[in-house]
Amino acid sequence: MSDSFWAVVPAGGAGTRLWPLSRASTPKFLHDLSGAGRSMLQVTVDRLAPLAGDRFLVVTGQAHLDAVTGQLPLIDPAAIIAEPSPRDSMAAIGLAAALLERRDPLAVMGAFAADHVVTDQDAFLACVRLAEEVARDGWLVTIGIDPTHPATGFGYLQLGAELPDHPGAYGVHAFVEKPTAEVATHYLATGSYRWNAGMFVVRPSVLLDLLAQSHREFAAALRGIAAHPDRLPEVWPGLPRLAIDHAVAEPAARAGRVAVVPGSFGWDDIGDFASLATLLGGAGRLDVLGDPARVHAIDSTGLVVARSDRTIAVIGLEDVVVVDTGDALLVTTAARAQDVKAIVAGLRESDPGLV
Amino acid sequence: MSDSFWAVVPAGGAGTRLWPLSRASTPKFLHDLSGAGRSMLQVTVDRLAPLAGDRFLVVTGQAHLDAVTGQLPLIDPAAIIAEPSPRDSMAAIGLAAALLERRDPLAVMGAFAADHVVTDQDAFLACVRLAEEVARDGWLVTIGIDPTHPATGFGYLQLGAELPDHPGAYGVHAFVEKPTAEVATHYLATGSYRWNAGMFVVRPSVLLDLLAQSHREFAAALRGIAAHPDRLPEVWPGLPRLAIDHAVAEPAARAGRVAVVPGSFGWDDIGDFASLATLLGGAGRLDVLGDPARVHAIDSTGLVVARSDRTIAVIGLEDVVVVDTGDALLVTTAARAQDVKAIVAGLRESDPGLV
Repeated sequence: MSDSFWAVVPAGGAGTRLWPLSRASTPKFLHDLSGAGRSMLQVTVDRLAPLAGDRFLVVTGQAHLDAVTGQLPLIDPAAIIAEPSPRDSMAAIGLAAALLERRDPLAVMGAFAADHVVTDQDAFLACVRLAEEVARDGWLVTIGIDPTHPATGFGYLQLGAELPDHPGAYGVHAFVEKPTAEVATHYLATGSYRWNAGMFVVRPSVLLDLLAQSHREFAAALRGIAAHPDRLPEVWPGLPRLAIDHAVAEPAARAGRVAVVPGSFGWDDIGDFASLATLLGGAGRLDVLGDPARVHAIDSTGLVVARSDRTIAVIGLEDVVVVDTGDALLVTTAARAQDVKAIVAGLRESDPGLV
Repeated sequence: MSDSFWAVVPAGGAGTRLWPLSRASTPKFLHDLSGAGRSMLQVTVDRLAPLAGDRFLVVTGQAHLDAVTGQLPLIDPAAIIAEPSPRDSMAAIGLAAALLERRDPLAVMGAFAADHVVTDQDAFLACVRLAEEVARDGWLVTIGIDPTHPATGFGYLQLGAELPDHPGAYGVHAFVEKPTAEVATHYLATGSYRWNAGMFVVRPSVLLDLLAQSHREFAAALRGIAAHPDRLPEVWPGLPRLAIDHAVAEPAARAGRVAVVPGSFGWDDIGDFASLATLLGGAGRLDVLGDPARVHAIDSTGLVVARSDRTIAVIGLEDVVVVDTGDALLVTTAARAQDVKAIVAGLRESDPGLV
């Protein structure tokens, strides 16, 4: 691996569908969702360290700066950047690109969200290594996840031809939004669609130049902040709220500038408790996140998240989801896990302190 | 009503199938299970006051004496008797009989458990009034509940002929144990069986004389305690552990000494959370015992008992039972509510402080 690969880790996102575990004050990436004793953020950094060494930039919200710094004692606090306010992924990743552009002219950066799961570490690293090689040639490179089912909760990308200079990497015809189940089934049948996991590997200047083609002032503002970091608080609130997919990846794909490295390494964004249950073990058993000695179950399958100090008894429920925290309790099923967001929406009105 | 009807209220019973609401330290009768703000014990006393005035004897465990006294400020503390140790219903009711035998030669006593529910107060009182009249003639009178379904969780009694002197009262052929579903269905088809709710109305001397016929020393010991109350701690531990049904009612029925007043007044002993859910509202809705403002539900039916200060979200579960207390949480279904006792049995070994 080169010594100029930088890992950029945007650590943000509300994760309301993991309420009451995930809150605005303690979002998903700060939690241990594997039971291994490391938060998703820590696991993300662990996963990337073989490629990035100590070359990390973490971008997080001002409210989470202390927690993130505390969880990452081996990362230079100066490499943990606090956004004054949420401005979506383009601003977060673009700011990291602007900082790296000035800092390391050879840099290739890879942006990886702090709250995704990867189960096959070696396969993941192999993909990113190839993506770095492709990115050095000026491509905006994404990792396309081999879909394991016709998911409707992820966007997809459509593969083009294999790149002549980079066997195993392909052009990207287009990024497409979350499909209906019918469309997703069609995507899988064609064999040429991959899940868009929002992972981008790119030279910082390439990313910013692509941004400048559609959003000239946005790119200039990010480069201005990098040149004069003291202007961050003043400039930041005026930046557009754009996802990197819309701001750069989609127009760049139309212009033939995006490549993809397909990968199959057990990826999930843990969008809800059903995903978490599947990740932890899946059908036919009751998984416990927390102290299993405090959970007493009879004839039950699903997931219990034990985050209070209470004893929990579960009897005769299939695919149940029980999330027990100090001030809030959720009881639902894997099939209805998505509906947690409706509860959160209601609480935001009635009891915002719980959200 | 006569001014010599005494209400005897045995306030005992572990109620493990209502765990974690009911505990050894705070059994069922101390809890408000109707949401009306009165405990089952208080509701029992309220229900009997039109008949008994201030003529109550409450028999409870030493551990619950303070709680019972605190909940019944209008009852003379001297009328609240603490058992040194649990000795089942014959000892508790028999002691009350022995005390009343000395205190009021005209007394008729009615014994009614502190943890049963009656929904039609007027019908209940009418039954007990008739039972008192029959008891004055020397019968051991029980109230036979018109069965609403072939319950397998209650004992039954078999009606004999109507008493010539007391229209509406009948002889009792026999008491029978909890039947199988098949036998219970047969009982209902005959029309001559009633649920045995353990309610007995009787002159104290009649009860003790009946007891003396099968357990001479037991009856003598109870009368001895009544004559010398200071001997209670010494004599009590040697008393047999017998249910009043076995010790007196069954042999007396065989001897033709038991009468029954059939009644239909919405009775339940709230044996488990399924019974409680039925009592509170039943099918098709989610009932909340506790502060409904803290329970947020979507597409759910069943029962939530909210006894902590937590917010509770329930999504997409039918006939669910959620019981949330400060140190323990139960999640099950009405159909599996009986299995709570298995959890309690396990906890008694592993974590007795929670039982």
